[in-house]
Amino acid sequence: MRSDVLVTCPLVVMKFGGTSVGDVDRINRVADIIVEHRVRNPNEGIVVVVSAMAGETNRLTSLAKHCANSPAPREMDVLLASGEQVSVALLAMALQDRGLKARSYLAPQARISTNDRHTNAQIEGIESQALKSLLADNGIPVVAGFQGICVDSGDITTLGRGGSDITAVALAAVLHARVCFIYTDVAGVFSTDPRLCKDARLLPQVSHEEMLEMASLGAKVLHTRSVYFAMRYKVPLVVLSTFLGALQPGRNGTFVVSEEELMEKALVTGVTHRLDEAQIAVSGMKADIKSLAHLFEVLAEEDIYIDMISQEFIGDDEVNVSLTVPDEQSERALEIIRNSVETLRANAVTIQRDIAKVSVVGIGMRYHTGVASRVFKVLARAGIDIKMVNTSEIKISIMVARKYCKMAVSVLHEEFFTVEVAKQVG
Amino acid sequence: MRSDVLVTCPLVVMKFGGTSVGDVDRINRVADIIVEHRVRNPNEGIVVVVSAMAGETNRLTSLAKHCANSPAPREMDVLLASGEQVSVALLAMALQDRGLKARSYLAPQARISTNDRHTNAQIEGIESQALKSLLADNGIPVVAGFQGICVDSGDITTLGRGGSDITAVALAAVLHARVCFIYTDVAGVFSTDPRLCKDARLLPQVSHEEMLEMASLGAKVLHTRSVYFAMRYKVPLVVLSTFLGALQPGRNGTFVVSEEELMEKALVTGVTHRLDEAQIAVSGMKADIKSLAHLFEVLAEEDIYIDMISQEFIGDDEVNVSLTVPDEQSERALEIIRNSVETLRANAVTIQRDIAKVSVVGIGMRYHTGVASRVFKVLARAGIDIKMVNTSEIKISIMVARKYCKMAVSVLHEEFFTVEVAKQVG
Repeated sequence: MRSDVLVTCPLVVMKFGGTSVGDVDRINRVADIIVEHRVRNPNEGIVVVVSAMAGETNRLTSLAKHCANSPAPREMDVLLASGEQVSVALLAMALQDRGLKARSYLAPQARISTNDRHTNAQIEGIESQALKSLLADNGIPVVAGFQGICVDSGDITTLGRGGSDITAVALAAVLHARVCFIYTDVAGVFSTDPRLCKDARLLPQVSHEEMLEMASLGAKVLHTRSVYFAMRYKVPLVVLSTFLGALQPGRNGTFVVSEEELMEKALVTGVTHRLDEAQIAVSGMKADIKSLAHLFEVLAEEDIYIDMISQEFIGDDEVNVSLTVPDEQSERALEIIRNSVETLRANAVTIQRDIAKVSVVGIGMRYHTGVASRVFKVLARAGIDIKMVNTSEIKISIMVARKYCKMAVSVLHEEFFTVEVAKQVG
Repeated sequence: MRSDVLVTCPLVVMKFGGTSVGDVDRINRVADIIVEHRVRNPNEGIVVVVSAMAGETNRLTSLAKHCANSPAPREMDVLLASGEQVSVALLAMALQDRGLKARSYLAPQARISTNDRHTNAQIEGIESQALKSLLADNGIPVVAGFQGICVDSGDITTLGRGGSDITAVALAAVLHARVCFIYTDVAGVFSTDPRLCKDARLLPQVSHEEMLEMASLGAKVLHTRSVYFAMRYKVPLVVLSTFLGALQPGRNGTFVVSEEELMEKALVTGVTHRLDEAQIAVSGMKADIKSLAHLFEVLAEEDIYIDMISQEFIGDDEVNVSLTVPDEQSERALEIIRNSVETLRANAVTIQRDIAKVSVVGIGMRYHTGVASRVFKVLARAGIDIKMVNTSEIKISIMVARKYCKMAVSVLHEEFFTVEVAKQVG
């Protein structure tokens, strides 16, 4: 059977983000990149996934805002999915014009099924037979990212933030691709935000686990959902820039692979930061387990996402509790807690927004101790107060005043990168 | 059964063209028009059909031109269908925002099936069950015009020029609508082009047959294909302006109905003109049936569309033949005929482009004679030479030099409108 033959053939998925297809010149550039890949790897199947042209989603969202105060999610999905429809058609044309047998696929044609959670749907399955037939014929499917079809209703759905990456990773998993290239507008994953720290360096490789932590802790190049998908289905990713020429270690491209495939396990892979959390402090609470339980219960009931928690006992029966929540939920969280002040028997509830979470991520922490103590020492030396701490097996996050964010990132990056390298060289 | 109940209920289709939904303000205006209809006719079902926002098709076509020298029709359909996708979503939102139970439908959801002739597909069927369910629930389906789904491949198709009108008329036919409103940017069908003749008047009603002739003879408000569809399925149409307030005889709106429903059969309904034909003259041809047959055979083989034909015998064995073809085919037609000059034994082949076809249309011609003689007399009095003539049961077309087009339209319009009215009044 054709499709059996295919599965044993090498195959890559190439995903191009919104800035990569931002105008017709760029779409033509993307077509050239695909042609080049085909010429260099004539026996390798190619599946292309594209996002909407940069700016299109904003344009459509703004139109919606002028037509309805609260646009229905079902209609938002119909509206937004038109963006990817335009880019797949244009890219398929551009590839055909270069002599390739390309063909555009929207979600119904690519048979990407989802549940019915409009604007944030989950992929439930992909029937890849149509794509496989085209691939077996040496053709190139150009698949619309971000969109799906609801299994039950047949309605258009969209996958939410990072949706096109998810489409690409899901197709790579289903088609057993050897790698999924994520073409974007940056060279890859950096050791820290280059805008905050001029010494930021391009990482040649990171593990899925590290990438997942870094994505959720502030690295914006990939969305956590797509990294999680890649990790779960062991899909190797390469994040690289559409605008910096071919994949070239150290200059363009970061491999995101399973831990066991890592060439070298760095102690620290990256220093990230986030500015989108607020800290709520509940002071003078009755220090019993019932009050604490109640606090987290009322927040959970309203789907408030709590990130960091700290508590400080004052005497025997009082406790100050601090917790951080996403900015967009902070008003609601504050209201919920204030409504519970009597039950909690708390003195005061205050909120602080000018905070920043700085994180140090590295799979090497699993095998080496002492990272936490170095973090504290470096920050103390710089005179930066730590408000809260949160750790996992492969990361340490600390909350600091927002004005110290840049400084904290710099000194930590210097400690774990410049100093490390100096040690190795010296 | 629900759908049986529905079919017996009154139902209207409201179709809004590209200028009617040209920006968000206009989409909101359209939503208000629909709300007003619902308020005035609470027991009447409403199905809405919309075109792409004005300018969108041009924008997309221009993008395509920059991505491929000759974009594949299949991909053009994917590209262009995105335009209607945007407008149905926005209008559905706007209606929901006004408390109506609206829901957008693309071709796959509305189950509008076509053949596989991309960019010019024909509707083969509509499974209206989904629409009927929503209608039975007092909901308003907002259906994307212009697009279909190919029965065999599941690919997106588009219906070509006038496609959204065709979608509207087809839905009106399938759902047994009492009327199909075609909202556009002009008040309706005029007795002649108002830009050419200041006395042009808005026609309160015309028959399908007259509309069909007028559309094919130059009236641009409706495309022949949709009028043909309406005639075939006896769908009454109302053409009216989105921008001139409610339907109001003489001010806004023209009814297009079956001949038997016409209140009054006017002798002449309209005077139209077209400038997009060229006249090819083959002079000194051998006057035998074989040569004539050969001439039309070679043209038919190349799908050249011939509109008017005239022949003039010179002596016993020579004939001058003139024929008109669409501008865009004229070069090819000329070449074909020149290549056959020897077989045709013709002296010369010449082409003339500065011509105009002026037509007088009216269902009353079926019952009254003398229209042709009045046409000739009026033109003779104005000193306008007639190059060719073509007639049908309900129209007379004459070919004149282009410089006389406006004058011919004016004098004919005056003859059949101002004079007629003067006669009636006097």
